[in-house]
Amino acid sequence: MAKVAILGFGTVGSGVLEVLRRNAASIERRAGCPVEVKYICDIRDFSQHPDAPLFVKDIDPIVRDPEISVVVETIGGVQPAYRYVKAALESGRHVITSNKELVAEHGAELLAIARRCGVCYLFEASVGGGTPIITPMHQCLAANVITRIVGIINGTTNFMLTKMAHEGMEFDAALALAQSLGYAETGDPSDDVDGVDAQRKISILASLAFGRQFFPQNVPVRGIREITVQDMVQAARQNAAVHLIAWAKRWEDGSAALGVEPMLVPNQNQLAGVEDVFNAVLVEGDMLGEVVFYGKGAGKLPTASAIAADIIDALKNGVQIHDSLFWQESEPIEGVYENPQKGDYYIRLRNATPAVSRDLFGDAIEMLEVREGEAMFNVRNITEREINAICRTAQSAGVQIGSILRHLKN
Amino acid sequence: MAKVAILGFGTVGSGVLEVLRRNAASIERRAGCPVEVKYICDIRDFSQHPDAPLFVKDIDPIVRDPEISVVVETIGGVQPAYRYVKAALESGRHVITSNKELVAEHGAELLAIARRCGVCYLFEASVGGGTPIITPMHQCLAANVITRIVGIINGTTNFMLTKMAHEGMEFDAALALAQSLGYAETGDPSDDVDGVDAQRKISILASLAFGRQFFPQNVPVRGIREITVQDMVQAARQNAAVHLIAWAKRWEDGSAALGVEPMLVPNQNQLAGVEDVFNAVLVEGDMLGEVVFYGKGAGKLPTASAIAADIIDALKNGVQIHDSLFWQESEPIEGVYENPQKGDYYIRLRNATPAVSRDLFGDAIEMLEVREGEAMFNVRNITEREINAICRTAQSAGVQIGSILRHLKN
Repeated sequence: MAKVAILGFGTVGSGVLEVLRRNAASIERRAGCPVEVKYICDIRDFSQHPDAPLFVKDIDPIVRDPEISVVVETIGGVQPAYRYVKAALESGRHVITSNKELVAEHGAELLAIARRCGVCYLFEASVGGGTPIITPMHQCLAANVITRIVGIINGTTNFMLTKMAHEGMEFDAALALAQSLGYAETGDPSDDVDGVDAQRKISILASLAFGRQFFPQNVPVRGIREITVQDMVQAARQNAAVHLIAWAKRWEDGSAALGVEPMLVPNQNQLAGVEDVFNAVLVEGDMLGEVVFYGKGAGKLPTASAIAADIIDALKNGVQIHDSLFWQESEPIEGVYENPQKGDYYIRLRNATPAVSRDLFGDAIEMLEVREGEAMFNVRNITEREINAICRTAQSAGVQIGSILRHLKN
Repeated sequence: MAKVAILGFGTVGSGVLEVLRRNAASIERRAGCPVEVKYICDIRDFSQHPDAPLFVKDIDPIVRDPEISVVVETIGGVQPAYRYVKAALESGRHVITSNKELVAEHGAELLAIARRCGVCYLFEASVGGGTPIITPMHQCLAANVITRIVGIINGTTNFMLTKMAHEGMEFDAALALAQSLGYAETGDPSDDVDGVDAQRKISILASLAFGRQFFPQNVPVRGIREITVQDMVQAARQNAAVHLIAWAKRWEDGSAALGVEPMLVPNQNQLAGVEDVFNAVLVEGDMLGEVVFYGKGAGKLPTASAIAADIIDALKNGVQIHDSLFWQESEPIEGVYENPQKGDYYIRLRNATPAVSRDLFGDAIEMLEVREGEAMFNVRNITEREINAICRTAQSAGVQIGSILRHLKN
């Protein structure tokens, strides 16, 4: 019998309780023993809940109880989750989490503690909801050197972009709809629309793939606030779809770059057709070529079922999982993990003529349309740094930058 | 140090040698020890090969050598692979294979032998080439009851159908191209084009998902020989693409149906855009909803890298993998695992008028086009058994059946 404590009884935490009970028989068969929830830790009042006797307000009774072998952390955020996870690992309990913020900020440290204490720290549910991404990456691609990751890993923004592309909704209306459906925070939606959530997730994937800690705050980011229906029209005319893409790339010399940015994804790319709240992550291995993992990026039961699979994995395989699921500590850098490569960009300037556009970006730009005072064009073969420098010049000359969308190359 | 023997030095077998050497360092780190090939068993003459000293002509020296812990079987076919695999398992060696025919015919028996002998029998490479499908299915979806599998799992036919759809090639030309590129057998291509290969792979996936052995010969099959460019045109007009789909479905009462058949896949379905030799498998879990695994379905290094990942898995986790990677023995049935559900079908009759079509399939058919003596129409809400009965009637009345393509429902 394995006894589990759940920290945080929100959407995901309550889903874990439900999944462990509903599929108890098959989970028992696969884990090799019954798996039962003994404690639920939440500071809120659940005295009227059918499982009221399970609730505690603090982690102390959990770490003092020698029967508990697995702690599920679904609190989210860095504190108090960090303190709780550390205490659980150091007292010899496996920790399973969906908390991407904590993994992205402190993953290397917590993995090292887990390894030292002979337990697991697993986080399949932190990226892609229930879609298996992390386990296939470290296990099935074990014989590969991973060179590139390209993903749609924020369901909320992908839902909004789908509505903008197919129903002609502008950003504000799409955001209001996402909020009314519970996909986006009703208070401050910036974690989603400004790419913060995607920065965390791509940091986790890159850390795992490349073997050292990458920090979310060092990932250059461009959100989707500036995107308009007009950009969607221009994308469609170029046989592409607009998605918020999180990517990471490693070169042969070991150097790496990461980014989160809205991109024009050519229709023939497998990621182009990923719509609504779905996620998809393309992983390129040196032996395997490209594989794509696709599924719903969020949701109570999908995410909870990923946590349940991690519980089974921890009970069966223990700390040796960390022979492959591991990365080294490193320090955050000054600045960002800059993209050194030249690329092609679609650009929309808010108040600019073709002449002004050419003054700024050069005579070689391909003008697509001028409409309601906005200039839309492609710029070929230019670095991110050059784009940013030109944008600073433009802004100081009073030109408003609309969208900057890189063309994704296959 | 783990010592490996490779049985069969064809494309995949030589790929395994290459992958184990090229990524030796990361494989050692993940497996916990160096992994080295000690024998290669092949009846052909490799005396001029740089690794000539490794070659043996029979399995005997391998099973007599106590140093060998892993046997890789890439011979293909049932015999002598079956005898070799059994001998290896019974002498206490893990067996890793890409041999889908053997797994599909004797999987349950060989899994039971592996479990009894305390070793692994792993076959990730048998479906989807290097694309991780089997491991995520049994491991990441461990907390799910799998209810449905829908896949494009034969790269050769998918390549041919892509050429027919996009370049207007007829079947014979597409087959000749596939043969010239090495995708299809130059002798008898029927394993691919008649769906035999897909029958084997879907049997493996269904056996794993549903927990009991399903046999390839019981899977109802319709190949792609009858498909014409005209069918591609009709599919496109209905916003769909034609793919050879292998599927399996289980109902709540435990009954199951399987099939391999060309289908009209609506463009908004994630499988519609899968082109060329790529494979994609959609798996539906009761908690998770739909996930899709996508990648190149074949190729020397991708397939070999899946075998290498299985070797690592066997060395690290041993026989306990079979707590979840397992299915029960069962007997082949008389007849086929019939699809009991009604569906919608697109049908092309070779020499029939609309009146004859209506006589056969009813007045409610939706006539799409009559062209060069061929009638093309949709029939709604009809079972496979009814379709087959009508086709027998038609043929006895001298009407030639062209294509029968079910519309895939999301």
